[in-house]
Formats: sequence, C-alpha cells, structure tokens
Amino acid sequence: MTRLFNDPLQFADEMTAGFAAAASRWVQSAPGGVVRATEADEPTVAVVVGGGSGHYPAFGGLVGTGLAHGAAMGNLFASPSANQVYQIVGAVERGRGVLLSYGNYAGDVLHFDQAQERLRAEGIDVRTVVVTDDIWSAPKHEAHKRRGIAGDLAVFKVAGAAAEAGYDLDDVERVARHANARTRSFGVAFTGCTLPGAAEPLFTVPEGRMAVGLGIHGEPGIDEMDVPTADGLADLLVDALLEERPDGAELAGARVVPLLNGLGSVKYEELFVVYRRVHEALASRGITVVEPEVGELCTSFDMAGLSLTLLWLDEELEQLWAAPADAPGYRKGTVEARRRAPSVTAEAPDAGVPAATAASRETARFLATALEAVADAVASAADELGRIDQIAGDGDHGIGMERGTRAAADAARAAVDAAAGARTTLQRAGDAWSDRAGGTSGAIWGEMLRALGRQLGDDERADGERAAAGIVAAREAVMAFGKAQVGDKTMVDAIVPFSDRLAHLVSDGRPLLDAWGDAADAAQAAADATASLTATLGRARAHGDRSLGTPDPGAVSFALVCRTVHGVLAAQKEN
Amino acid sequence: MTRLFNDPLQFADEMTAGFAAAASRWVQSAPGGVVRATEADEPTVAVVVGGGSGHYPAFGGLVGTGLAHGAAMGNLFASPSANQVYQIVGAVERGRGVLLSYGNYAGDVLHFDQAQERLRAEGIDVRTVVVTDDIWSAPKHEAHKRRGIAGDLAVFKVAGAAAEAGYDLDDVERVARHANARTRSFGVAFTGCTLPGAAEPLFTVPEGRMAVGLGIHGEPGIDEMDVPTADGLADLLVDALLEERPDGAELAGARVVPLLNGLGSVKYEELFVVYRRVHEALASRGITVVEPEVGELCTSFDMAGLSLTLLWLDEELEQLWAAPADAPGYRKGTVEARRRAPSVTAEAPDAGVPAATAASRETARFLATALEAVADAVASAADELGRIDQIAGDGDHGIGMERGTRAAADAARAAVDAAAGARTTLQRAGDAWSDRAGGTSGAIWGEMLRALGRQLGDDERADGERAAAGIVAAREAVMAFGKAQVGDKTMVDAIVPFSDRLAHLVSDGRPLLDAWGDAADAAQAAADATASLTATLGRARAHGDRSLGTPDPGAVSFALVCRTVHGVLAAQKEN
Repeated sequence: MTRLFNDPLQFADEMTAGFAAAASRWVQSAPGGVVRATEADEPTVAVVVGGGSGHYPAFGGLVGTGLAHGAAMGNLFASPSANQVYQIVGAVERGRGVLLSYGNYAGDVLHFDQAQERLRAEGIDVRTVVVTDDIWSAPKHEAHKRRGIAGDLAVFKVAGAAAEAGYDLDDVERVARHANARTRSFGVAFTGCTLPGAAEPLFTVPEGRMAVGLGIHGEPGIDEMDVPTADGLADLLVDALLEERPDGAELAGARVVPLLNGLGSVKYEELFVVYRRVHEALASRGITVVEPEVGELCTSFDMAGLSLTLLWLDEELEQLWAAPADAPGYRKGTVEARRRAPSVTAEAPDAGVPAATAASRETARFLATALEAVADAVASAADELGRIDQIAGDGDHGIGMERGTRAAADAARAAVDAAAGARTTLQRAGDAWSDRAGGTSGAIWGEMLRALGRQLGDDERADGERAAAGIVAAREAVMAFGKAQVGDKTMVDAIVPFSDRLAHLVSDGRPLLDAWGDAADAAQAAADATASLTATLGRARAHGDRSLGTPDPGAVSFALVCRTVHGVLAAQKEN
Repeated sequence: MTRLFNDPLQFADEMTAGFAAAASRWVQSAPGGVVRATEADEPTVAVVVGGGSGHYPAFGGLVGTGLAHGAAMGNLFASPSANQVYQIVGAVERGRGVLLSYGNYAGDVLHFDQAQERLRAEGIDVRTVVVTDDIWSAPKHEAHKRRGIAGDLAVFKVAGAAAEAGYDLDDVERVARHANARTRSFGVAFTGCTLPGAAEPLFTVPEGRMAVGLGIHGEPGIDEMDVPTADGLADLLVDALLEERPDGAELAGARVVPLLNGLGSVKYEELFVVYRRVHEALASRGITVVEPEVGELCTSFDMAGLSLTLLWLDEELEQLWAAPADAPGYRKGTVEARRRAPSVTAEAPDAGVPAATAASRETARFLATALEAVADAVASAADELGRIDQIAGDGDHGIGMERGTRAAADAARAAVDAAAGARTTLQRAGDAWSDRAGGTSGAIWGEMLRALGRQLGDDERADGERAAAGIVAAREAVMAFGKAQVGDKTMVDAIVPFSDRLAHLVSDGRPLLDAWGDAADAAQAAADATASLTATLGRARAHGDRSLGTPDPGAVSFALVCRTVHGVLAAQKEN
C-alpha cells in the first residue's frame, strides 16, 4: 500500500527531489536523474546505470565513489527516456568512455540503446552490459533473455570499482560482463506492490501462498506454492542457484558473495532468520561466504518478497567486490574524502519557437485542444488501462499513459502560447510524452507525434490528406521502432487498420471527420479483440493456466485516443 | 505480516545468529547479544545499548566503530534481561567505565538498572542515559516519562563518537544527556505489525486513517486522523516538533539534523517524497539542515508508519554527529580499518547442582511437572493473552509468557535430571524464565520463582505451610520489585488475594490441594475483573474514547498458572 504522496503524477519528481536533498553529501540532481556530488583527481571511465524508480537503493542510491557516476532515473517502474540517459552521460563523461549498465527490460534496452547510438554518433566511446541474473525469467539456453534483478548491485559494484581503479573502458566492460556471467538470482513474493494513487496492487498472491520467480515490477511469477518455513525457503533458493551455477564452478572451495535482498515489506529480522540457513547451506557444501549483504538492495516498492543472489568470485572479482564504496544506499570500507564536484546545471529552456504561418498555428491550437481532451480521457480510463496491463504486463501502462498525455498536452499548450506551428507543437508534445511517460509506450508515442508533426509542418494548413499522410508516417515510425507486426497483439494491431482505413476514405474524398470516425471504429475493433483476449488470459491465469501469450494494452489506449480526437473534431465542426 | 520463520519461539535466537553471520565484519555474537568484532588501539569508555529485538538496525545493527561497543538484544519487543546486559558489559568494559543507553520503557529500565547495580557492586563505574525523545508519549512537564524511539540513534551516535574521541566517562555521559535533551521525535502509523506466529497484528488502524503518537511496540496512539498528503504529513510533523523545540533554541540560524525514519513497510520512495517537504519546511524557517538521514533507523517490525526526529545541534554535538561511524546498520565518513578483536567465548555451562535430599528432589520433580503443565496451558492461551494485551499494552504478553514458561519448564527438567532439589530447580527455572521471556513480566516471574525456591530449600519436603510461606515470599518479591498496589490492575490484584487465602486456609489446617483450589478461585475473580475492564476498554477505544486506564494482563496469566498447578496437584493426589 502506498499512502504518502501528493499528486501521484508528481510522485517520481518529488521523490527524486527529496532524495537529492537527503543525499546531498553523495549526489546532486542533474537533468535526467542524479550524478556524483564529488569528483576524483584523475578522470576515469564513467559508469552510468539507471532504470525505473521504485527500486531504491537502485538506481539513484548507487551513485557515489566506487560505484556509479550517474543514474538515469525513470518514472515509477518505467525506464528512463533516451534523452535522460543522454543527459546523464553528458554530465559525467570525462573523455575515457562510458559503460552503460542496467537490468534487462525491453523499455530500458530500447532507450539506453537509443542514447548509446546518439552518443556514439557524437564520437563518445560507449559500451553496454545488460544485467541478466534472474534464473527464473528464461531457461539456461536463453540466458541473454533473462531479467535483471538484485544482481544489478554485483555488476554495478564490480564495474564501479574497476573504473575507480583506473581500468580502461575495454577492461571495465570485460569485468562487468564477467560479473554478470557469474551472478545468479532467484526471487519470490507474497504480495504485490501498489503504485501511488492506484486502488489495487499490481498482482495478488493468495494468503499463505508464494509466487515463485516473479519480476520486480510485478511481472507474473512462473509458479506458485505454499509459503515454506524460513529454512525451507533458504534451501529452495540455495538449491536452485547451485543447480544453475556458472559453467565450470566447483562447489567445494568456491568463494561466493550472497546478497539476500528484501523487496520491500519483508523485515530485516525475517531476512536474518532466512540468511542464517543460507549461510549454513552454503558452508555445508564447502563454499566460503565472502562479504555478504542482507538488506534492501533492489526493492520493488512495497512488495513483500525477497531474492537471493550469488556472485561467484574469482581473484579479480573478489578484489573489485571488496573495494571501498560510498554511495547513499551502499557503503563499504574506507573511502577517502573527495572534493566537491562543480554543480551540474540544467540546460537553459528553449527561448523561442520557429516561425509558423497563421494556418499552421490554427492547426496547432486544434492539436493542443485535442491533446488536452486525450489527457482527460486517459485520466478517466487510467485505472482500467492499468487493470488490463496487470494481466498483460507490468501494470504501469495506465499511469504511464496518464503522465505522458498530460505532459504532452501541457507542452503543446505552452508551444501554442508561444505561437508555434503544428510541427513544433507536436515535436515538443512528443518529447514531453517520451520523457514523462517513460517505458516503451512513451517512446513510441513520442515517435508518432514527431512523425505526424513532420508531415504537418509549420507552414501549411492541415487538411484530410495531410492528416492521413501524417498518420501513415506515424504508423511507419511505430513499426520501425518496435518491430511488431499485426497479430502480435500490440498497438500495431490498431494503428494499421486505422491508418489504412483513414487513407482509403480520405483519398475517396470523404470529409476528415467522417473518415476519422470510421477509422476509429476499425481501431476499436482491434482494441476489443485485445481486451477480450486479455480477459480470457486473466481467467486462464486464475485457473493456473499460464500457457497463453501476453497481449499489451497498446491497442486499447490507441483506440481511446482515436475516439477522443474524433470527439474533438466533431465539436470543432459544430462550432 | 510476518511470514518467514521456523519455530516462532526460536525466532529471536535464529535472527541474532543470522545477523551475526551476515555482519561478521562488524560484530560477533556474545552471551546476551553482540559486541564489536574489532578493537581500538587504546581503551575507551564502553557504550552499551540495547532493547527488544524487532527494531533493526536498533540495536545490534548499531554496534561498530564510532557507535556502540555492544548491544544487549532482548527477545522480540521484550527488553533484554539484567543478566544479558551484565554479560555484554563484561565483554566490552576496558577499565574506563561504561555508559548504558536505551529507550525509556519500563522493562528496559528495570533490567538495565538491575545490571547497573550489580556492575557497580563489582566496582565498575556505570552511568545511564535513558532516551526520551517521543514528544507524544508524555507532556512537556513530564518529559522524563517520554518513550525513546528513533532518537535513540542521535543519542547513541553522539555517545559513541565521544567515547571514540577518548572522552572520559563523565564527559560521555554529559554529551549523551545533552543530546537527549536536544532530541525530539514524533511518529505516526497506518497499520500495526504482526509478530512471528501471531494470527493478528498488534493493533489496527482503519483504512485511510492514521494513528498519531503511538509507540514502536504498538502501544496505542494518542490520536487518530485521516491520512494527509505527503506534504501535509511533513508539515504536521515539523510544526509539532518546532513547537516542542528545546528551551532557548531559536529557529533562524539553528543547525538541525532531521532523521526521517521508516518504521517498516513505508517505502524509501514515500519517505523521500515526505522528506522533500520536511527539508523545505525547515529551510523556510531559516534552519540549516545538517547531514540528514532518511531510511529505516529504528523499525517496528513490519509496521507501516514513520517518525521524524530533530536533533538540535551546538558545536560539540555537530562535531560528534559528523564523526565517522562504521556499524552494520549505520555508516558514515572515513573509518580507519581496525584490528580484529579476540573472540568472546560463552561462559562454561554450570557443571553440576548442589546436593539435595531425596525429599526435596521429589518436590523438584513435582515442580518440573507443574511447570511443564503451565507451559502447555500458556501455549494454548497465548493468543488470548496477547489479544488482551493488545488492548492493554503492547501485545507481547502472550508470547513472552509462552517463551518464559517453556524455558522455565525445560530448565526445571534439566535440573531435576541432574538431581537438583527444589530450591536449585526453581532458581534455574526462574533465571531461564527471566532470560527468555524478557520484559517486566519475565523479570517478575523470575523473582517469584527464586523467592519460592528460597523458602522450599534443597533439603526439606515441601508441605502446605512451606508452600504457603513460599507464595507469601513470592508476593513480597513482586511488590518490592514492581511497586504496584492492589487495585492498580496488575498481577498484584491476583497474587494478594491468592496468597492471603492460601496462607489462611493452610493455617486453618486445610489440605494443600483444597486450599490451593480455593485460593485459585480468588485469583480467578481478580483476573475476571481485569478481563472485564479490558473488554470495556476495548469497546471504549473502538468508540474513540481513550480516557480509560490501561490494565495489564498479569492477573489473567497469574490465575491461569494457579489453576494449572491446582490441576497438577489434583492429578498427583489421584495417582
């Protein structure tokens, strides 16, 4: 249960501000997240981590001497945008190259990769090591598809210590990759977490039962079983992780770091009771335990659950794991005091907008009005969208759409007030949507708005043909971006029939209002199919059947946007 | 909800073992709790803290360089016994004296004071500073009656830093007392915590409401209100604490350490959102915030709630607050690596028992059987006793009685197996009861058993007169110890009529079985009065009336013990 918030849409920003104020000895706010408040005498490779918020001390709490140089902090359970990652790298890069490291989630991969491309295009040497420690999220032969959970800390710590020791980028990348290859985790949960303002938890587990192998955003578990005793749970975790030990690792004589991680509401005292048996179980196999950690290392908001991570050391990894570190959420050993780094200042806000014709400015006003209506409609539907996404994915779609549409509407209104044309208005609205919504859906909607804007331009009046061409461009942007096809049960299922039908009717000479309405019906049909499949999926899950695929709610929200815009078009005609 | 445990009665021991294994870089197990694993070059004043378990990182997590030298760790929410405190002091005292510091709770005061007396009698200079930071637990003019909550950390940190800096005992005591005088806290809670194996939380708060000013063991709050926004809560806390600032403290120009403490299930992200406004609210009054802490500093198992503490600095306090520290649950600054301290070994177990006559050994066998029956009866009634104590006090009476009676029965059986007489058997049973039950009730029952044992001796057969004299002695021990009178709604309400009636009937020549039965009825009448008052109190509370006093369930459990022993006497007669 999340009880303490002001406006739920401001939660992540207010959290980041509070964190930066509380942790000002270690970090300072920077556009996109936080960076170190101190600096070393000599430049080093920069280690930039990041991910959604709600996992404290991951990710902002791991910024400090001997650990990360900066963290791109996304919204709650939503990846940071590519722009956030780009900005954080810009604030910490010192000419020796950059390692990006983060947990393996589609939205994070997408945005970090975009940022990497942009940085490389600017001549910065950027490498990426994605953390894939969660053994339950994919089978051994597809280990690269596994999610990253509390093993993040092991990989970040090793990379951060290597950078601190003056390793060059090749070697920082090498040890980080090696640490990931030797890190395995396994998690269980007893209850789901509830996002600020949400009425219900992202998932539930029956009393006395335990979800096995679930993700840290409430992605459904792989299995469910009765809650064992503390010792029983310790044995379950240790046995599974030893079974999955890295190739070639012998048990007897091995040196291993156990990280017993509370996900939120499991108490320290319970963790220590479980740890007692973990320690015994490892020692009984002849394994030497090295500098363990028991506590909250990578949380999932207020989820009740825990995970065990094992990092299988060799000499170099042990040295890097044992090296001192001093971050708000992770400290060890003796770290020399550092000098204060100069303040990172935010980029100056853009002073003006490019000139636009009166006709394009009229279109821009319509677009701002439409985006405001969309934001209102999404706000009303956010709970429903979140509920669908709870079954289909990680439950953050509603809140992400809500943040994104509101930010887009605000940015569009500001652009219009500054006399922007359609292209500039949509460009800014798209940027705001991506930045604030986070996640894959935020990135895609940003691309769509910018693609539509490029078609509309800042000069000419938007007519039906230009609008239809803009929608086709938006559709192409989506498909190039996400690589999904019709039938994959994503937003593509709705945008393809919508744009086909709109283009067809407009070229037949139908007025835009009518054509849009018909096309919106086609989008709605696709959305209904998704919703119906999702409901079936929910019932199947309730009966323990986890064999069905996972549709995403993108088609449902796309149809909602189309219907809302149709309403605004109709109202405009009446006036 | 506490889900992860093995045998609930072993929870605290297993937790301490797991903690010591996880934190072996900082601490080592010692009889009674944990002590530092490292040592300084020069001896310093020893700072010994302690209290019940379930408040991690308080108290074991605060042992380390620059903080405490040792922690006496009681059972869950139960004070450590005097013997635990005594043993921990013995392990860390280095000839420069000892400061005892702990939160102001009756059970802790009682046991730490007993230990202090014993240590002083041995010539060790021992001082005590009790922490009294919770402004809602007593009015300003009775500040010495206030409870200790998260302000513990402020006082312990200042005392630990002073000891580390080589201060002598007078000065360590002085700064600790000064820190306590300049520390104020205020807490709220949204849900109660649930002890391992308990079916229900210690208290509940209606959804959307918040208990104001409650204690960290679930002692009832002083008020209840709707949950405000995060900013509203921050303002509420700051306003109340500024109102209560230490005499003479000016707002503008003041330098203050805020500690925003999560009690268990409130998440870091929520704490940061609240902290954002706390920081603003302090700064807006011209107060300079110095090295704040936001996190879990003194928890209450899995209670959802938080507290804000303000430590009002002067130059010396600021220096001591800023000094480095390196403990499992609290680290700051640069601490030089220390050499490993020699291992603390447990005292050798007592080899034998004093000689006893066959008659006394027969009595001892009866006593062991009776204590086993009492342990079984208490185990069956533990939930009910806990439920009564939820209304009356902190809800740990049932579990404390369960641990104490089982430990007493086991110790008695072991003594009998070693051919002990009645006195030795009751002495060991009483010691085990106090040590394992913790809390005030554990201490009192320990005294009663030892007092009864002294009357029975190791030589003579126990007859009715000797038994009655033993009960009178036990009653005197209780009344000297706890200072309660008949009518105060404590165990005294039951033991006084019980011992009066037993002594009277036995002196009239009634057989012990009959006399004991009649006397047990008198105890039961007192117990019924307590239970009935408690039920009334519960109903009044449910209607928001908090004006009634708080009976403790001691009379109820005393009557249960009397009835159970009567059953054993009756069974013995039949055989």
